[in-house]
Amino acid sequence: MNNFRNDYSDFGSKEIYQEIERIFDKKVSGYGTDEISNEARDLILREIGREADIEFVSGGTATNILATTFGLRPYEAVLSASTGHITHHETGSIEATGHKVVTLDTTDGKLRADEIRKFIEDQPGEIDVKIKVVYISQTTEVGTVYTIDEIKEIYEVCQEKNLYLYIDGARIAHAMAANSSKLSDYAKYSHIFSIGGTKNGAIFGEALVILDENLKKDFRYYLKQRGAMMAKSFLIGLSFKVLFQDGLYYENAKRAYDMSRLLVEGLKDLGRDPVFAESNQVFIKSSPEEIEKLKEENIFEIENKKESIIRLVTNYRTSEEEVRGFLNSINN
Amino acid sequence: MNNFRNDYSDFGSKEIYQEIERIFDKKVSGYGTDEISNEARDLILREIGREADIEFVSGGTATNILATTFGLRPYEAVLSASTGHITHHETGSIEATGHKVVTLDTTDGKLRADEIRKFIEDQPGEIDVKIKVVYISQTTEVGTVYTIDEIKEIYEVCQEKNLYLYIDGARIAHAMAANSSKLSDYAKYSHIFSIGGTKNGAIFGEALVILDENLKKDFRYYLKQRGAMMAKSFLIGLSFKVLFQDGLYYENAKRAYDMSRLLVEGLKDLGRDPVFAESNQVFIKSSPEEIEKLKEENIFEIENKKESIIRLVTNYRTSEEEVRGFLNSINN
Amino acid sequence: MNNFRNDYSDFGSKEIYQEIERIFDKKVSGYGTDEISNEARDLILREIGREADIEFVSGGTATNILATTFGLRPYEAVLSASTGHITHHETGSIEATGHKVVTLDTTDGKLRADEIRKFIEDQPGEIDVKIKVVYISQTTEVGTVYTIDEIKEIYEVCQEKNLYLYIDGARIAHAMAANSSKLSDYAKYSHIFSIGGTKNGAIFGEALVILDENLKKDFRYYLKQRGAMMAKSFLIGLSFKVLFQDGLYYENAKRAYDMSRLLVEGLKDLGRDPVFAESNQVFIKSSPEEIEKLKEENIFEIENKKESIIRLVTNYRTSEEEVRGFLNSINN
Amino acid sequence: MNNFRNDYSDFGSKEIYQEIERIFDKKVSGYGTDEISNEARDLILREIGREADIEFVSGGTATNILATTFGLRPYEAVLSASTGHITHHETGSIEATGHKVVTLDTTDGKLRADEIRKFIEDQPGEIDVKIKVVYISQTTEVGTVYTIDEIKEIYEVCQEKNLYLYIDGARIAHAMAANSSKLSDYAKYSHIFSIGGTKNGAIFGEALVILDENLKKDFRYYLKQRGAMMAKSFLIGLSFKVLFQDGLYYENAKRAYDMSRLLVEGLKDLGRDPVFAESNQVFIKSSPEEIEKLKEENIFEIENKKESIIRLVTNYRTSEEEVRGFLNSINN
Repeated sequence: MNNFRNDYSDFGSKEIYQEIERIFDKKVSGYGTDEISNEARDLILREIGREADIEFVSGGTATNILATTFGLRPYEAVLSASTGHITHHETGSIEATGHKVVTLDTTDGKLRADEIRKFIEDQPGEIDVKIKVVYISQTTEVGTVYTIDEIKEIYEVCQEKNLYLYIDGARIAHAMAANSSKLSDYAKYSHIFSIGGTKNGAIFGEALVILDENLKKDFRYYLKQRGAMMAKSFLIGLSFKVLFQDGLYYENAKRAYDMSRLLVEGLKDLGRDPVFAESNQVFIKSSPEEIEKLKEENIFEIENKKESIIRLVTNYRTSEEEVRGFLNSINN
Repeated sequence: MNNFRNDYSDFGSKEIYQEIERIFDKKVSGYGTDEISNEARDLILREIGREADIEFVSGGTATNILATTFGLRPYEAVLSASTGHITHHETGSIEATGHKVVTLDTTDGKLRADEIRKFIEDQPGEIDVKIKVVYISQTTEVGTVYTIDEIKEIYEVCQEKNLYLYIDGARIAHAMAANSSKLSDYAKYSHIFSIGGTKNGAIFGEALVILDENLKKDFRYYLKQRGAMMAKSFLIGLSFKVLFQDGLYYENAKRAYDMSRLLVEGLKDLGRDPVFAESNQVFIKSSPEEIEKLKEENIFEIENKKESIIRLVTNYRTSEEEVRGFLNSINN
Repeated sequence: MNNFRNDYSDFGSKEIYQEIERIFDKKVSGYGTDEISNEARDLILREIGREADIEFVSGGTATNILATTFGLRPYEAVLSASTGHITHHETGSIEATGHKVVTLDTTDGKLRADEIRKFIEDQPGEIDVKIKVVYISQTTEVGTVYTIDEIKEIYEVCQEKNLYLYIDGARIAHAMAANSSKLSDYAKYSHIFSIGGTKNGAIFGEALVILDENLKKDFRYYLKQRGAMMAKSFLIGLSFKVLFQDGLYYENAKRAYDMSRLLVEGLKDLGRDPVFAESNQVFIKSSPEEIEKLKEENIFEIENKKESIIRLVTNYRTSEEEVRGFLNSINN
Repeated sequence: MNNFRNDYSDFGSKEIYQEIERIFDKKVSGYGTDEISNEARDLILREIGREADIEFVSGGTATNILATTFGLRPYEAVLSASTGHITHHETGSIEATGHKVVTLDTTDGKLRADEIRKFIEDQPGEIDVKIKVVYISQTTEVGTVYTIDEIKEIYEVCQEKNLYLYIDGARIAHAMAANSSKLSDYAKYSHIFSIGGTKNGAIFGEALVILDENLKKDFRYYLKQRGAMMAKSFLIGLSFKVLFQDGLYYENAKRAYDMSRLLVEGLKDLGRDPVFAESNQVFIKSSPEEIEKLKEENIFEIENKKESIIRLVTNYRTSEEEVRGFLNSINN
């Protein structure tokens, strides 16, 4: 079977396990206070080129909860695209902390700076919530990619309106592969952002980069309270250390991106123009019959049943054979 | 000035104050456990014609919080029209309890039974919240009125899908005046509903009628916890006692409705067909210039600035002079 | 029957109803934005002698929720005496907002400055919550009264440790009657405090005096969100206006206090030294048999069943006859 | 250095990494829906000897949040020993979900059945929270161990009073090593319990065994909402599979227990009777001077600074050399 279901079905990069083997007898202190995590922090700080607090978090939903809601007062809320992962893919996790997620419809999963500004200025006052955090995801849930200019404009609106910009970077690696942006760009134009490990070769876990001073203060209390500070946090630290010490993080993403390009080109050659295909998530329009046929040799998710849109995800372990295999099945 | 701003700018029906004067020296027990409240409960039970628990609540937002969220498990959510009062007029009060409000767009502020069924059946499972409560308001926020048949159909979907139907009856009196429905109808076709006092002659406060057994159990703990159980709850009990003992509740609503009809007819005579005008809230399309002019002698709210839609609300204390005054200003 | 059950079993001061009658036909704007409320605010500001924001809240529990939790970040907590009203008399209302109440045992219901300092300094860091608010009640739940010096010392610790001091003034009137303190004292030595209306002659409702700038900002959003901003908030404003325009608030409290003194002296004459009796709540040790006997002609609450301690509360409407009646029954 | 700081400073059992190597190229489905996790579930079900739902959770705090609060209605609360891990070691994580933790003082970290019954029967009703969950930890935070009879009695009170009993089994392995209890015992006498992996050889993660039908229903929604359902949950499943397929889980615990016995006997030989020492956590009274000296060659935590009580924890990777090393330093 050719597996395009998601980008988190692997055990992580081999190099991480080699490192574990190397230091297996070491006893490491808990809760992210260990040396390995500190080495990982230093490596990331080198990439982003500015001072920041870095915490390692068990998973993506936990990361989004923490980053989105830590800075909110009780009546404050989050603005997100209506496709945002936090709106209908995380079981009301933000609302569960007491805060509303207000959504704007988009054509491509991307919020625009001027729409945000307008929305903020039109808020009615105390009868409704007050937006304090803008949530964007890079890459977006439909596989599109913000340019750094677009993010910069959103950041400037946030600065002007006294909002926090949080960038959910679960797939930030794949965005960097797609548009040659750098971690330092995201560190320049956000108040807090995450660097996804789960989907790009870590054993598991995400790094949360906290840039704003108000969000830094006492953040670890919240990390602990929400059950996201792991006793063995050093496993995440170690994953990031290995991923960043020799550029493996970027290589992994490039591999995933290259495979997605091979897929997209192959599809186009077959006359099948994807709906969205800017990064390692490729969405194509199919039909109920074709979907049945494709399922015989391929694993993937149906994004939109009504419109028969399917999602194909590549990652650093996708092989050329899988890509060709999929193209073959679609061609038969 | 002719006042059409809202239906809660008065001190309440004179008859209530007369009753207070009559029993002024009485000492009454607290938290709604008093005789007066019990008499009010009996009067309401007589109207609804079936067994129920009745609690008196300080205000409308508190009532909505309690009724909407009491029966929810942590991951469960509320379905509402996107115009629903709980969505953008109560400062995220439902989300503040940890629960998401999911909205459906409508043309007239009314949810439809088949849309609800379809939505429920299309829910994706554990990655998203699970609807447990359907929220409708009677009258709606745009002044439209559900027929009892429409509510019955919604109730039947709720029964079928194991959901609670909550009817926010802040203006239920005005709905009954508009479509001759009865309290017993609402008691038949909902799991919990409120009877608004604030907008129809009570000093203040709402009655919450709890019909479902699961929602009855321990409800008063929640009433207390949310700060909505008043020490002097007997003031609300007394309001409802006076309003229901001789039909004053219905008379007040009829008066409000009659004044709204006078207004609507007058507007039509002037060639001004209201956008929505089924009950005591009349919405008309105006223009920025006209709004300025109307403001000189009338008080009202602008519902939608962009489209210059204004809202005119009548209540039991609106006078014919005020209606004619408004019509005059619009005619000049 | 002689009624000593509580101090909120009355309809409120006659003078308030006279004022309602006088202005009955006035139409008043909603949500505390009206002129009457503003007049009440001005009267209170005159008493406290410094700038403040004043909001009128429907009841005591709601007031405590708002004042205690508005300024908290998610991991911050409240410090209270273990007898504090918020700990076991408000159904977990503070925890329901997501915040822990940490308690200290006391002999007399009063926190001490040095105990607070020590507790703050001994906090273990991120594995536990972090105290941000100190809650004290004046008078306390056992009827004791803080001196202004004691409150000043607590306030100074709060300033030093960057905490908020909230004084729950549900019975602040009775404290002022007992120790000649003034509202201006409380305004000097707290960040936020409440002035109880419910228990001292208002129809209902409390005034919340917000002194700290961080707590002022956007407070009304929270008031609305928690269901505590009443549409007819002007009823509370009007109560406070009447209570403060000619000193009625102080007269009411003095009356309650005088009756409690009459009671205490009478008890002492009978050789019955109360357990606590500094203000209008008098606690005396009884016995199961005596309690049965006393119940025949008196109404009161049993504070502690195991130790047969009963609570006798006077208010501004307690009569000398009731006091003598109680003393008589205890003497027979 | 001899390391007795905690039992979670290791990378996990070597056998788990061998298994990862064996199946490294496998692509595994996400969120705990994979085959490996199902095999692990089957192995655990075999041990507990009855039907149950089993979920794998990222860490201990998350496990406690989920298990403790899932079944609560808004006004319901948790009863715990005042030493319970959820009270002052998890940063208010339970309160953050809106629920109070009510505590009872104990002499040895263990709740007693009759104290629980009495507490439940003395609850005052709607002015306070209502206990619904009893939280106990096995082993306790002071290293004591419940007998199965003690747990059975607590369970019977819970059954009688309609409460849930949750056993926090972060160190349940060490309890089984200490008192020869079996997983099937805990499955018989609780409604939900956890099997700790983090502290006994898993890479990381806990297994939550859900026995009560009400707690089973929709549990995975909550797991997802709270950020505790990991995309790569299969890593936890795999840990438990390896730990339970050939008894490694029990061997690891036995090793930790044996080392703690060696330590305890050595201490007794030196005339140093531990304060608590029933399982792999050994608490001994020291002095500030001795602590300084011990720190030179040993790593451990100071449990109680004021009384100079230190905690020594053994785990499956503690060596005899470390134990003898510690005993040596204490003897010099």
